[in-house]
Amino acid sequence: MSLAFTWLASASRVTLRRGALDAVGGEVERAGGCRALVIGGGASAAEALGRLRRQLAERAVAVIEGAAQHLPAASAELAVARARECGADILVTLGGGSATGLGKAVAVACSLPLIAIPTTYAGSEMTAVWGRTENGRKITARDDRALPVAVVYDPDLYGGMPPRLAAASGMNALAHCLEALWLPATSPITAALAELGVHQLMEGLPRVVADPDDIDGHAGNLLGACLAGLSIAQAGSGLHHRTCHVLGGGWNLPHAETHAVLLAHSTALAAASSAKVAQRLSGVLGGGDPARRVFALLEQLGLPRSLAEIGLPEAAIPDAAERVLAASRDDPLAEDAGVREMLAAACAGRPPAAPSDTHQ
Amino acid sequence: MSLAFTWLASASRVTLRRGALDAVGGEVERAGGCRALVIGGGASAAEALGRLRRQLAERAVAVIEGAAQHLPAASAELAVARARECGADILVTLGGGSATGLGKAVAVACSLPLIAIPTTYAGSEMTAVWGRTENGRKITARDDRALPVAVVYDPDLYGGMPPRLAAASGMNALAHCLEALWLPATSPITAALAELGVHQLMEGLPRVVADPDDIDGHAGNLLGACLAGLSIAQAGSGLHHRTCHVLGGGWNLPHAETHAVLLAHSTALAAASSAKVAQRLSGVLGGGDPARRVFALLEQLGLPRSLAEIGLPEAAIPDAAERVLAASRDDPLAEDAGVREMLAAACAGRPPAAPSDTHQ
Repeated sequence: MSLAFTWLASASRVTLRRGALDAVGGEVERAGGCRALVIGGGASAAEALGRLRRQLAERAVAVIEGAAQHLPAASAELAVARARECGADILVTLGGGSATGLGKAVAVACSLPLIAIPTTYAGSEMTAVWGRTENGRKITARDDRALPVAVVYDPDLYGGMPPRLAAASGMNALAHCLEALWLPATSPITAALAELGVHQLMEGLPRVVADPDDIDGHAGNLLGACLAGLSIAQAGSGLHHRTCHVLGGGWNLPHAETHAVLLAHSTALAAASSAKVAQRLSGVLGGGDPARRVFALLEQLGLPRSLAEIGLPEAAIPDAAERVLAASRDDPLAEDAGVREMLAAACAGRPPAAPSDTHQ
Repeated sequence: MSLAFTWLASASRVTLRRGALDAVGGEVERAGGCRALVIGGGASAAEALGRLRRQLAERAVAVIEGAAQHLPAASAELAVARARECGADILVTLGGGSATGLGKAVAVACSLPLIAIPTTYAGSEMTAVWGRTENGRKITARDDRALPVAVVYDPDLYGGMPPRLAAASGMNALAHCLEALWLPATSPITAALAELGVHQLMEGLPRVVADPDDIDGHAGNLLGACLAGLSIAQAGSGLHHRTCHVLGGGWNLPHAETHAVLLAHSTALAAASSAKVAQRLSGVLGGGDPARRVFALLEQLGLPRSLAEIGLPEAAIPDAAERVLAASRDDPLAEDAGVREMLAAACAGRPPAAPSDTHQ
């Protein structure tokens, strides 16, 4: 088959460096900002938020603390009003996916440039996708204004990160990278970035779970999270992500943990679908059966190994499988028996079937 | 050492596909263009230019044929006047570096979006660097408006490409990728892209030199050229490139051939400077001594192996070395004995010294 692809580059300036938080003033200046609305995440980022405010000094014209999860429409409206009121010409977020998400909503509403300083491995800072919750439904859209003009990763902000949070959000990032490797439309450029992301996360996640103060481990994971964001921005998502959304929306399963538990089983499904995919995944994951390798990582990181543990009743499997198939009609992996088997194995926490047991 | 970098993404939409020329109308539409000024390169692209004009039909409001090399100021002014006169709202170039370069100059002068369809392995379509020649001096600058909004690579345009042109411009692209791998400021994201570029070119160049109609070989090289452009856009250039510019400017050596001949010797200099660089280059180039591997490729492609053959007198070496050192004061490779030895070996066409012979 001849090489053929379309690749859409993202246009962010990405800085990763210990102590980078203290250079955010320079990024604000580079982006032409004088009056920043600063948006902070949860309490864990409070100390860093204080440092950021002191650094920006009079350029921080207003501060919103404690961005809420899932971005309720009312919070977004309040933040937009605040940005207009204070005459902000730039937005700076410091926090996890919720702070970045609120910043994106304001950036789109007010056409303001956005600088993101993440404090988890969410990766959403590398995409132009933004969302809000209206009447209990999460709506997402893509808008170039939602893509930060600059992203600042400071590994020093991650010291002491709770291992469970690091492990689950890291597996979520790993899922973005691995899925990009098996989606048929992924360009070879994106695949090279996704592959580097897999290497970083496979090495870094066990390190920071063993020692939450391993700053170099966090640095590697942040590069991995950045590449995970680029992967989903460029390659989109497929059956693995749709399944997580179905389970999250229908049975209220926690987002990152759902990704983490499902990943070994969706990897098994992808590997069984094509010898070429199986070989590629095996190579990227260091040899051997790729699904077993992901399952071993899940166990090593001390995460739950079954969807049952995080809230999926076994009786829900047929209904869940049907919803996944309905949401994935054009996905080559969306095949009834395979999806049921994936959900059953993930629900029970069984190790993925060895390659010889599958219908490869 | 802790991971630390800044990475600036480029914002182009890149399409590579056989027959992609026939979908350029869609790219024009996507970019919001209705009135295109079409800029064509040399005679070799004449048939493709005819197809492009027929496809764009009344949307091609004006055509400039035969963009001149080195972009004389007068040609640029004429093209700018033409763009204004015809009320163009988009520029489409089809050709090698000269056509792309003229398009960039007009894009900057008139703030118009640019779509580039390259017909050589120049790679300049992936950068925001543009240049012009004034009073016999080439001036270059960086301007975001010079970066094409879309790049269309159609491997079918490359069937029958003269092997010497393919080999020399391909080695030029390889030089961009390899230099990105040894420049100290290269981000790991750019390095992953450069590495993929090296793999593509090492595989594809011998194929198209052996069979100029090997379209899949051309497709791989085009991906390589695209990544070479991204590499230089993101990592900049160092001693290798400065040396080529000194030799081109001072002794009128041909651009691509100079890159090709020098590359094995600049690779030897880089590998001798650091065991880590040597190991990385060796890994990327498939094992063994990286400089010897590049030299073997040069020979396999049937290119000249000495700078003497392409116009550098041996007596010029001390003067050239001095100019290279003066232009590279902050480059860690810019060390007197090393630069002289590199130039002497490249001038004579000697194989690069084996690692044990160097001052590693």
